[in-house]
Amino acid sequence: MTTILFAAHPDRWAQYEAPLRAALAKAGLGDATLTCTAAPQQVDYIVYAPNSDVQDFSVFPRLKAVLNLWAGVETVVGNPTLTVPLARMVDDGMREGMREYVAGHVLRHHLGMDAHIKGKPGGWQPNAPPLARDRTVAILGLGELGTACAEVLLALGFTVTGWSRSAKSIPGVTSFHGPDGLTDCLKTADIVVLLMPNTPATENTLNADTLAALPRGAVVINPGRGTLIDDEALLAALESGQIAHATLDVFRVEPLPEDHPYWRHPNVTVTPHIASETRPETASQVIAENVRRGEAGEPLLHLVNRRAGY
Amino acid sequence: MTTILFAAHPDRWAQYEAPLRAALAKAGLGDATLTCTAAPQQVDYIVYAPNSDVQDFSVFPRLKAVLNLWAGVETVVGNPTLTVPLARMVDDGMREGMREYVAGHVLRHHLGMDAHIKGKPGGWQPNAPPLARDRTVAILGLGELGTACAEVLLALGFTVTGWSRSAKSIPGVTSFHGPDGLTDCLKTADIVVLLMPNTPATENTLNADTLAALPRGAVVINPGRGTLIDDEALLAALESGQIAHATLDVFRVEPLPEDHPYWRHPNVTVTPHIASETRPETASQVIAENVRRGEAGEPLLHLVNRRAGY
Repeated sequence: MTTILFAAHPDRWAQYEAPLRAALAKAGLGDATLTCTAAPQQVDYIVYAPNSDVQDFSVFPRLKAVLNLWAGVETVVGNPTLTVPLARMVDDGMREGMREYVAGHVLRHHLGMDAHIKGKPGGWQPNAPPLARDRTVAILGLGELGTACAEVLLALGFTVTGWSRSAKSIPGVTSFHGPDGLTDCLKTADIVVLLMPNTPATENTLNADTLAALPRGAVVINPGRGTLIDDEALLAALESGQIAHATLDVFRVEPLPEDHPYWRHPNVTVTPHIASETRPETASQVIAENVRRGEAGEPLLHLVNRRAGY
Repeated sequence: MTTILFAAHPDRWAQYEAPLRAALAKAGLGDATLTCTAAPQQVDYIVYAPNSDVQDFSVFPRLKAVLNLWAGVETVVGNPTLTVPLARMVDDGMREGMREYVAGHVLRHHLGMDAHIKGKPGGWQPNAPPLARDRTVAILGLGELGTACAEVLLALGFTVTGWSRSAKSIPGVTSFHGPDGLTDCLKTADIVVLLMPNTPATENTLNADTLAALPRGAVVINPGRGTLIDDEALLAALESGQIAHATLDVFRVEPLPEDHPYWRHPNVTVTPHIASETRPETASQVIAENVRRGEAGEPLLHLVNRRAGY
């Protein structure tokens, strides 16, 4: 019999137990044991939050795979006791939430919405913004989430470019790759959206040099990972006007400490890591499908490349 | 020889002359006379802004058609001296601009963006919004602009419903029509977008009764026409909380007078009639195509139904 250990904070269990049982039954795994307290020698799969108590995977002799509840795997991928396959979470709810956040904040800057939200009585200046087709949005990171965002920005009419570590091809998107491609991609970007994973190679992708490569007055949107930005360099670029505005959802320390300069900078919007979250209903279906695949001997969805780190 | 009179404010002539000449040449009408001062007996077509000096069309004996520069024709359609065909302006730029404005303001409310734009240091409350698929946006008016907005909201994942005078069918949109259909459409709308034309039949479409049909806390977005809303009823619904927010781009009097209560209401956003404007480059192509059609004896694009008033 298949035993699935749910290893995450207890409040997650309350959210996930019912949708996960329903998804397992629907996948033909209604007889699997789903539990948050199993004897280690009986565990076949671990549904896993990296901040759970489980940190030593060597105690699970039968373990077939670890199914991460989160998109980010940076705090588990380097665990030396983890020798079985690791799958990231990529669920429709997360993809949709990200798409909505990115489209919304890109449109907010495109339309100059803040001036109206904070408008003064009688402030009637009927200057329509340019069309989206005349704005270039660059997406750094063309994985599942970056691709979903690129597609919806194209549907809105924006000119979309993208950059990734290795070459990618998305219809309608002008793509760049590799270290040299990054500067070329940034040079024409009115708005840049960061959607890369957190790996040693992506740390401080936006730094003094790359921020200087953007056109003056560009806008930065970061719903990816806090480590992608050199915070001191971004604050300096905001001071000089090189960057007109930054909308940031992720930070090196979360919650963002109350005394962090981002909170008080007039050209920074802080959102509290809400761009996208795993949703129990949609995520449970992905987990059940991966258990089904594991039991059927089929390759798992969203397997992590351990060398690349995502 | 074909003579085209450009009848609009002089600043429009400065914007339109070059793109209009280019579009006419491209349409094979390079030998047409384009002018803003023609002898009335020589005029074949009038490119027309309803606020121009030309108000008596009976002085143009050869006139074949009036090609409106604006989407709205409410101030010309009833002119008794106008007996030739009248075409509305429907240009790609206007359609795109409207799509962007509507998508942006719908997402702003969907994401609860204002709380972050106006956020306080340390205000870290990581509650992700629901997904777009769990929000219903109702579009009142399913013409060219309403359809374009419905399509982009579908691409963003929203549940989209629509209402129009006569039955319309748009893939993916649950459509209602006629007076009874309006209440049914409003009953489930989290956000309602007004995109009907200004006709006697559409005046005060949102009034005390129809506002009461919306779920409590609904959001109103009006980029259509100021006359679609009973302003007193909307202010009362905002006061009571029946309507959580109204974003208004069009008004009975424009510019909106500085002492109008909309300017100071905390739950109203005023935008200065910028949701969509005719763009000289794209609009000139539509005008040139209609002159070409007129000269070739083909039916004009975007003909106004004089009885319906749009």
